[in-house]
Amino acid sequence: MKIYGDSISGNCLKVKWVADSLGLSYQWIETDIMVGRSRTPEFLAMNPAGQVPAVILDDGRPLAQSNAIILHLAEGSGLIPTDAYERARMLEWMFWEQYSHEPYVAVARFQVRFLGKAVADLEPRLVERGKAALQRLEEGLADNAFLVGEVVSLADVALVAYTREAGDGGFDLAEYPRVKAWVGRVEQALNIAA
Amino acid sequence: MKIYGDSISGNCLKVKWVADSLGLSYQWIETDIMVGRSRTPEFLAMNPAGQVPAVILDDGRPLAQSNAIILHLAEGSGLIPTDAYERARMLEWMFWEQYSHEPYVAVARFQVRFLGKAVADLEPRLVERGKAALQRLEEGLADNAFLVGEVVSLADVALVAYTREAGDGGFDLAEYPRVKAWVGRVEQALNIAA
Repeated sequence: MKIYGDSISGNCLKVKWVADSLGLSYQWIETDIMVGRSRTPEFLAMNPAGQVPAVILDDGRPLAQSNAIILHLAEGSGLIPTDAYERARMLEWMFWEQYSHEPYVAVARFQVRFLGKAVADLEPRLVERGKAALQRLEEGLADNAFLVGEVVSLADVALVAYTREAGDGGFDLAEYPRVKAWVGRVEQALNIAA
Repeated sequence: MKIYGDSISGNCLKVKWVADSLGLSYQWIETDIMVGRSRTPEFLAMNPAGQVPAVILDDGRPLAQSNAIILHLAEGSGLIPTDAYERARMLEWMFWEQYSHEPYVAVARFQVRFLGKAVADLEPRLVERGKAALQRLEEGLADNAFLVGEVVSLADVALVAYTREAGDGGFDLAEYPRVKAWVGRVEQALNIAA
C-alpha cells in the first residue's frame, strides 16, 4: 500500500497510526500540501478531491478520506466494535469529527502554527466552536475510558488526531481534564509518541 | 423508532428516505431548528451535540449524525454494497459530503431560502467551494449511473439530499448535466417526490 500524506496533517496521521497498529506494511509518500503537492495532475488523477490522505491499496485501487480509509483498513480488527450499536456510535463520533470538530480545532491550529496567525486574531466563531467541540468530548468521556466503551476504537483515532494538537491553536486542554487524560490513554493504546 | 427531524433539513430527510425505502416503521417528531427545538434540555439529553437528525432506536437507545444513522439502519440491506472496496468508496463519498459538500451547498441554500439572503450577497468562498463540490460530483458520475457503480447506495442518499436543493442556493444544476440526471435517477430509485 502507498499512503500519500503530509506529516503535519492529523488526518494523514490517522492512517499511519492505524496501519502501524495493525502491522500493515506500506510506503509513506510525503505530500507537502503547503507547496501544492496534492493539486498536481498526477495527484488529482488518483484523488480528484485534491486532498490528503489518499492511499493506493495493494491491488492498485485508490481510496481517499481519512475516516473511510481507516474504516477500510481496520475492517475485522479490534479497532471496530463487533456490536452493531457500538459500531454505529463509533461512526457517529467519526462523522461528528469531520463536521463539528476538525473544521474548528484543526483549522485554528493550522492558522496559528503554519500560517503564523496570532491566537488573539483567530475568528471568534472558530474559537467558540472549537471550545464547544472540546466540551462535547469532555462530556462524551464522562462514563468511559474511550469514546465507545472501554476499548480504543476508530472513534478515538479520529478524534485524537487534532485534539492532541489543540494547544497549538490556542485551546487549553487543562480546561478539559477528561479529554487530556484520554489523549494520553489513546496515545498509549496506539503507541503514538506523546 | 422515533426520528427527531426538521423537514427543511436534507440531513434529516436522508433518514426518512432510508427508513421508507427499507419499509421500517417509525414516528417522525418534527423538530423546528429555527426556534431552537434541538437545543432544549430534553433534546440535549438525547443528543448532546444539539443537532438533528437524532433517533431513538426501537430498544430506546439514541443515535445521531445523519450518515451514521443511515449506515446503521441500512446494515445488511441492498443500500450498502457487499464488496469491501465498494463499501469503502461509499464511505469516502459520505465523509466527503459532510466535509466538502454540505458546508457549502447546504449552507448557501439555508442562507438564501431560510435567512432571506440574496444569492449575490453570499460569501464568495461559499459559492466557489459549492461549485467545486458540484463539479467533483459531475466528474464522479462520468462512468456510472450512481456514485458507486450501477446500484443506488447510501452515497447517493447522502449526496442527493442537498444537491437536489442546490438551485435554492443559487447554483445552476444545468451546468452539471450528469449531476442533474443522477438526481432524477436517485429520486426515482428511492421513490422521493421530485
